[in-house]
Amino acid sequence: MIQVGIIGGAGYTAGELIRLLINHPKAEINFVYSTSNAGNKISSVHQDLLGDLDMKFTDTVNPKVDVLFLCLGHGNSVKFLSANTFSDNTKIIDLGNDFRLENDKVFQEKTFVYGLPELQRDAIKKANYIANPGCFATTIQLALLPLAQQNLLSNDVHINAVTGATGAGTSLSDTSHFPWRDNNFSYYKPFTHQHLGEITQSVKQLQNSFGSEILFMPNRGNFSRGIFATLYTNFEGTLNEAKDMFKAFYKDAKFTFVSDEVLHLKQVVNTNKCLIHLHKHNNKLLVTSITDNLLKGASGQAIQNMNLMFGLEETTGLQLKATYF
Amino acid sequence: MIQVGIIGGAGYTAGELIRLLINHPKAEINFVYSTSNAGNKISSVHQDLLGDLDMKFTDTVNPKVDVLFLCLGHGNSVKFLSANTFSDNTKIIDLGNDFRLENDKVFQEKTFVYGLPELQRDAIKKANYIANPGCFATTIQLALLPLAQQNLLSNDVHINAVTGATGAGTSLSDTSHFPWRDNNFSYYKPFTHQHLGEITQSVKQLQNSFGSEILFMPNRGNFSRGIFATLYTNFEGTLNEAKDMFKAFYKDAKFTFVSDEVLHLKQVVNTNKCLIHLHKHNNKLLVTSITDNLLKGASGQAIQNMNLMFGLEETTGLQLKATYF
Amino acid sequence: MIQVGIIGGAGYTAGELIRLLINHPKAEINFVYSTSNAGNKISSVHQDLLGDLDMKFTDTVNPKVDVLFLCLGHGNSVKFLSANTFSDNTKIIDLGNDFRLENDKVFQEKTFVYGLPELQRDAIKKANYIANPGCFATTIQLALLPLAQQNLLSNDVHINAVTGATGAGTSLSDTSHFPWRDNNFSYYKPFTHQHLGEITQSVKQLQNSFGSEILFMPNRGNFSRGIFATLYTNFEGTLNEAKDMFKAFYKDAKFTFVSDEVLHLKQVVNTNKCLIHLHKHNNKLLVTSITDNLLKGASGQAIQNMNLMFGLEETTGLQLKATYF
Amino acid sequence: MIQVGIIGGAGYTAGELIRLLINHPKAEINFVYSTSNAGNKISSVHQDLLGDLDMKFTDTVNPKVDVLFLCLGHGNSVKFLSANTFSDNTKIIDLGNDFRLENDKVFQEKTFVYGLPELQRDAIKKANYIANPGCFATTIQLALLPLAQQNLLSNDVHINAVTGATGAGTSLSDTSHFPWRDNNFSYYKPFTHQHLGEITQSVKQLQNSFGSEILFMPNRGNFSRGIFATLYTNFEGTLNEAKDMFKAFYKDAKFTFVSDEVLHLKQVVNTNKCLIHLHKHNNKLLVTSITDNLLKGASGQAIQNMNLMFGLEETTGLQLKATYF
Repeated sequence: MIQVGIIGGAGYTAGELIRLLINHPKAEINFVYSTSNAGNKISSVHQDLLGDLDMKFTDTVNPKVDVLFLCLGHGNSVKFLSANTFSDNTKIIDLGNDFRLENDKVFQEKTFVYGLPELQRDAIKKANYIANPGCFATTIQLALLPLAQQNLLSNDVHINAVTGATGAGTSLSDTSHFPWRDNNFSYYKPFTHQHLGEITQSVKQLQNSFGSEILFMPNRGNFSRGIFATLYTNFEGTLNEAKDMFKAFYKDAKFTFVSDEVLHLKQVVNTNKCLIHLHKHNNKLLVTSITDNLLKGASGQAIQNMNLMFGLEETTGLQLKATYF
Repeated sequence: MIQVGIIGGAGYTAGELIRLLINHPKAEINFVYSTSNAGNKISSVHQDLLGDLDMKFTDTVNPKVDVLFLCLGHGNSVKFLSANTFSDNTKIIDLGNDFRLENDKVFQEKTFVYGLPELQRDAIKKANYIANPGCFATTIQLALLPLAQQNLLSNDVHINAVTGATGAGTSLSDTSHFPWRDNNFSYYKPFTHQHLGEITQSVKQLQNSFGSEILFMPNRGNFSRGIFATLYTNFEGTLNEAKDMFKAFYKDAKFTFVSDEVLHLKQVVNTNKCLIHLHKHNNKLLVTSITDNLLKGASGQAIQNMNLMFGLEETTGLQLKATYF
Repeated sequence: MIQVGIIGGAGYTAGELIRLLINHPKAEINFVYSTSNAGNKISSVHQDLLGDLDMKFTDTVNPKVDVLFLCLGHGNSVKFLSANTFSDNTKIIDLGNDFRLENDKVFQEKTFVYGLPELQRDAIKKANYIANPGCFATTIQLALLPLAQQNLLSNDVHINAVTGATGAGTSLSDTSHFPWRDNNFSYYKPFTHQHLGEITQSVKQLQNSFGSEILFMPNRGNFSRGIFATLYTNFEGTLNEAKDMFKAFYKDAKFTFVSDEVLHLKQVVNTNKCLIHLHKHNNKLLVTSITDNLLKGASGQAIQNMNLMFGLEETTGLQLKATYF
Repeated sequence: MIQVGIIGGAGYTAGELIRLLINHPKAEINFVYSTSNAGNKISSVHQDLLGDLDMKFTDTVNPKVDVLFLCLGHGNSVKFLSANTFSDNTKIIDLGNDFRLENDKVFQEKTFVYGLPELQRDAIKKANYIANPGCFATTIQLALLPLAQQNLLSNDVHINAVTGATGAGTSLSDTSHFPWRDNNFSYYKPFTHQHLGEITQSVKQLQNSFGSEILFMPNRGNFSRGIFATLYTNFEGTLNEAKDMFKAFYKDAKFTFVSDEVLHLKQVVNTNKCLIHLHKHNNKLLVTSITDNLLKGASGQAIQNMNLMFGLEETTGLQLKATYF
């Protein structure tokens, strides 16, 4: 069994990793590190795990685990790896944004590979260190990459996306206070969301000539899980040509599917899927892309990367029952 | 007291009119017409009115009321007015979309004035027949008209807006079934919503030269009331110039205000207000506009129009306590 | 105009008082005291008030206002009145629980009258100092008092009630964090809620012999506003006898009504009403009682008390448009 | 592989069975019968299944399947079995309420065993025909049976429970219309819910002397999934004695656990678990019991029964990732 260590164990993405790993047939949780909760039962924080898991949080790491997941606030992965040493054989998957960009990808002689399987499955298989993509970044890239691969992104891209409240994490805040958030809607960081860097980097990896603008409006929805993204840009081909292109791009994808029907967010909640729908209006191609921000947008994709890195079937432990309601 | 008749009394907009009129100091409900509910207490349908109102629905109209509100499905106002005759002194306010467009505005020798007070307060004051604007149309126009007035809409306009479930009316439907809608998100009628006609018409009324595209994505949110719209377009001026322009345009507006702070939807729920916020990013001006779809987007604006038509203070009966939570 | 001062201006109940008072025809806000927000616009905290109110929070009180509302955490009214002196002519309405019980009602030679109008309208009219009832306490008492008045509470009373998240106030907490609260349900303080004291006191005021148990289960619902309470106890009479008794008890009530139809919570949201429904099953009488916890359960009832104390029509400024959706 | 047929394939419980069976390692869906949807893809109705399943609904049954799940409206299982013949080797699990009560349990020479594993695991293992318990019935029985087994139910039992909107099924209705249900709360069938029959029958199976009343108030919550039930009754022992008794009763249970901490509903959503918490107040024992109404309350328990009937490990295919948020 693959021995797994989790750092930052009290947050949402760590919780999701634990939920996935307790049912993963080839991996085993070795330790869950949380300084603030050390000594407490994991199920005292992730309370749905009662009956599933007796393990406690620890403040001691096992430096010899096979794989380490970093579930830390942005900037803290660098700090953690500077202060703690692991075996050279320990693979690392960082769920933060410390190593995602070209300029950040080498740290302590480790080279982090950007972990979007649909873009670079082969590189991931060979990687020892993975920078797991952001949630908005995953959802939006999967809507753009088939176009980029064909060098068809020649105009501005207009993106509007809504995320659930888990996207803002476990920290209490005014905009996650129930009386505020319930039945409310708002936006944040208009046109400047930090995931734009990853998105642009991946688009240029496929379409080096890309020089248009990506205009991205992120919104806060009054739901807990999921990202619903729509984007449009100029596209001269027919709708069928677009569908064929997307289906070809995703023909080997295990979790990304093109839907002929219009989508709604709950189709993917509590799954590792990304569903994509295409619509043509005059010369615009409208692409809808939906994911669960905590799974395909974070911990599910991290396990998918782990599976690839360890030579397992990509879907191992990720065939999840959707909630749907 | 102004005697009021309401046609189509069982729907949401009629319910809102009744809620407003029972506290209106200058108007009195004369009858509420609903063929399907005739003989039943109004409070058996609009159940919050228990204790406020003993009146019953009727299937007989009083043709001599001072003002008639038509709260019918689209297309049915024409049918109703064809089948029923009212006094020449009866003013009519149609909440449907039958008379909003230039080509539809004359019917039975009646000329309907488009009832957006911020655009044509003076014409409304003199009007006997009002076509009350649509909810998306109101929210979006109020974000565009100050720019149109200055002939500054010279590029495509990108609009994303989310509406609550009341926007789809009282008819039961799959996409308003609670287990589907709860914690969900979806879009409908991409780029082709029927309110585009009104919006374009009003923009051209102020900026005849307007020839760019309006790209409008309407979405279904998992809340009950309100519209949250964001739009952006090219704008060469500064943010302060934009603010000055919008504040000047709305200096006499009783319900439309420019906010220096970022907005969230619940600021306007259960009020007749439209709040607007401006943000500049590079050469793009981002305008946020929020309303309660049933009030400023429908019944509240209808009462506002009635007030203007009858020479009352525009805010009469519309100084509402916001719900906020 | 009655000059009003509000202490503790940043909380939910103060916000509701402000929303009510800006439209109250006989009262005027003189100052809103908040040490943490002094100098900031009131609309920067209560953000729906943009366009309604330009006033700022202050940290200075005007000791000569006609009426003072205390919107402080429990225990803090005593502290505040110990540290601040007001005119002898200043009436005080405390929305906290410092003066509600017989043992607490005299403070600094001021005698606080328990401000439930349905129970003691006449005493309130003559009072200078009011202890405004708790939200659960109001909702539950209004379901029990007609029985107590007839000395008919002879067995245990079983109460289950659900409150919205505003009931827990503005302080951020784990159980008001949106990802936790959304689509969730839980209980707290089983059988020991602090409002039991008030409830028992009022019941005994009408039925001195009352010696049975009141078993009260308070729950947290995943909505923002409102209390839905059901209670049952033995009752030997018929349903019609019960209805007659309740209707007689509330024949002069301005906001409490008996519904012949089954109730649902949103009938009272954003109103000052309490609706009551009766149902008989074998020898049990089931009483449903619903209120908006922030209005009839707090700030609305406080204004109702103010109206009575100043000789105004009880409903002044309280004829509110229900939200309903 | 166990060949499975599903009758009534378009409803919620059938959808959940399909979601469970596509990942079940020992069973395979042979056909999904739905007359109204015959010929359509299953993923056109259960739209989260896109990418998981290409099968279509059929209006033809395969009479030789190993097990048949009936997901029909109450009363329709009898009709269906009267009109259709299956192999003598076909086991049947009815998710409706046609065969749950002693008087109904023999039909066409088939004897249906009440399928609550915690009560009669051994009988289920030997059964060919199962009457799967109701959702409220499961949740409430699991809170009562340990007491009944010890003959400790000697007084009235007071139950309050809230269910999500999926409990009302896929049929559109006023009380499941989003603008009504959102942020609302209500009750239905006070003291007369149809599951009382099952509950009483099981209690008497363990405690034949039981003669007290079960007072059950069912409520509609504004969430989609789950049942949160609290009940209390007289109990003379200590809290620890109660805990020991419950833990002993459930020591072999695979999905029912006693929590030392207070519960909240989302701990069990999208799992097959029942969590139970005990609290003592004076002479009352308060028992909280929570389940997912569609899983432990319906389809999950049906699969659990299938596993037992076919000699599989009870948890096969039921180790589900909780949604939690």
